[in-house]
Amino acid sequence: MISPGKGVTSVKVERYRAGDRSRRKDVVAVEEPLEIRVEDLHGGGVRTTTVSVTMRTPGDDFELAVGFLYGEGLLASARDVAEISYCMGEEPQQYNIVVVRLRPGSEFDVEALARNFYTTSSCGVCGKASLEAVEIRGCEPLPEGTLSIPEGILTSLPERLRERQGLFDRTGGIHAAGRFAPDGSLLELKEDVGRHNAVDKVVGKAFLSEHLPLLGEILCVSGRASFEIMQKALAAGLPAVVAVGAPSSLAVDLAKRFNMTLVGFTRSDGFNVYAGAQRIERST
Amino acid sequence: MISPGKGVTSVKVERYRAGDRSRRKDVVAVEEPLEIRVEDLHGGGVRTTTVSVTMRTPGDDFELAVGFLYGEGLLASARDVAEISYCMGEEPQQYNIVVVRLRPGSEFDVEALARNFYTTSSCGVCGKASLEAVEIRGCEPLPEGTLSIPEGILTSLPERLRERQGLFDRTGGIHAAGRFAPDGSLLELKEDVGRHNAVDKVVGKAFLSEHLPLLGEILCVSGRASFEIMQKALAAGLPAVVAVGAPSSLAVDLAKRFNMTLVGFTRSDGFNVYAGAQRIERST
Repeated sequence: MISPGKGVTSVKVERYRAGDRSRRKDVVAVEEPLEIRVEDLHGGGVRTTTVSVTMRTPGDDFELAVGFLYGEGLLASARDVAEISYCMGEEPQQYNIVVVRLRPGSEFDVEALARNFYTTSSCGVCGKASLEAVEIRGCEPLPEGTLSIPEGILTSLPERLRERQGLFDRTGGIHAAGRFAPDGSLLELKEDVGRHNAVDKVVGKAFLSEHLPLLGEILCVSGRASFEIMQKALAAGLPAVVAVGAPSSLAVDLAKRFNMTLVGFTRSDGFNVYAGAQRIERST
Repeated sequence: MISPGKGVTSVKVERYRAGDRSRRKDVVAVEEPLEIRVEDLHGGGVRTTTVSVTMRTPGDDFELAVGFLYGEGLLASARDVAEISYCMGEEPQQYNIVVVRLRPGSEFDVEALARNFYTTSSCGVCGKASLEAVEIRGCEPLPEGTLSIPEGILTSLPERLRERQGLFDRTGGIHAAGRFAPDGSLLELKEDVGRHNAVDKVVGKAFLSEHLPLLGEILCVSGRASFEIMQKALAAGLPAVVAVGAPSSLAVDLAKRFNMTLVGFTRSDGFNVYAGAQRIERST
């Protein structure tokens, strides 16, 4: 078993405070590129496709790779995956290339890849076309009746996330995403310099253990809620996204179109609901 | 003259505060895709290449497009640009496709594009290879003696940036990047849901007015400092990046390798210097 890279590293820093200057060691979040490759059988041979190069914090790289592929609609089930491994080469990049090998019969849809990463429809790019592209990929509105979140639990989620964020405490600069049950218990937490990566790691872990869709759970994110975050939550069947920060316009549009609950500016004394208020249980 | 899209939009929100629930209007940052296309003469005809689709806040789209292309090493000078326009098509996406038309003789290096967006060197991907790729693109260490920042000015920059952030005040969720002179005067400020886009807009504006390189100025960013932000600052010749948030490991490595000043956790009473402390003038 090989060990993945470290999530934090030590650097020398000059600290200026109220006129004083001191040299000390500081801990920063590691940022390293990760190349995600898919290997499948095609035309009688083995085909390798580089799907993405993303800057990420090492750790949970296999989860990140499959979570990303799943979120983009390029992977349907854990049963399609034969093996996940690091591509071992020369020393420096040995933990920076992840290869997801598909089972025979699970062919990789290279055209879907092109569709996702380039223009999404013949009419050009716009928010509406972006939402339609998510539909074309097979995402449907999430059902009612699978999740009800007590108001008092909702307000506690950012604090519960923060308490368990090991890397943040040491670096002060890393995003977190967590899966929560409606009673407020934390089911999974992942951290990364990129907030989309933290979500991919959470979803990828659930994907590998065949827990998707997560229709009875909540995704809590430490930052803002963008289109990308909502799209990943939708693909994983997570009906509610609770963000510490603000949502974007397209995140709100996606939540409405796919019947998701979107909560922003979540604090211990309140929050704003941008979509799907019916899933929030009033305190009595 | 056509007008670009709006930066903010109004949405209905249910606001929960200390047990009270009210319906009101809230303002969120607009997020819409932008497709960046380059048009050049190649093989006797006009060639159009889609370089990127990025989620951004509408506004300063032409600056964003050329700033992005310049930061990736795909555009060298404003003199190479014949025209920048929106691609007008059907209604919805009419301000979401920007076409940068090059002058005859300014051929677009499609291979550089492939190099940048896929693997960066034959030895695979890693932080070291990412830094080497920046060197291969022609970026050199920034010189000494072009910038000296008084400590008291440095600590004031985040507040000066924040004061002028019009969209943030209305949405609470948008990143800013600003160019500052060493006396603390704000030379340019741009906002976007994506922090890399805010930097591209600032650099793109300076590119179009032929002010690059910005060797005597400071870039201040509202969020964290990642590899990507440092790379864009380096390409623009900005010797110092002052971040409100934390830096990543690779941002520190880039700053050291290219003789840049990198400051993080900047507050009114202090800051941390991760590289290039020689550009900071001690208060007496």
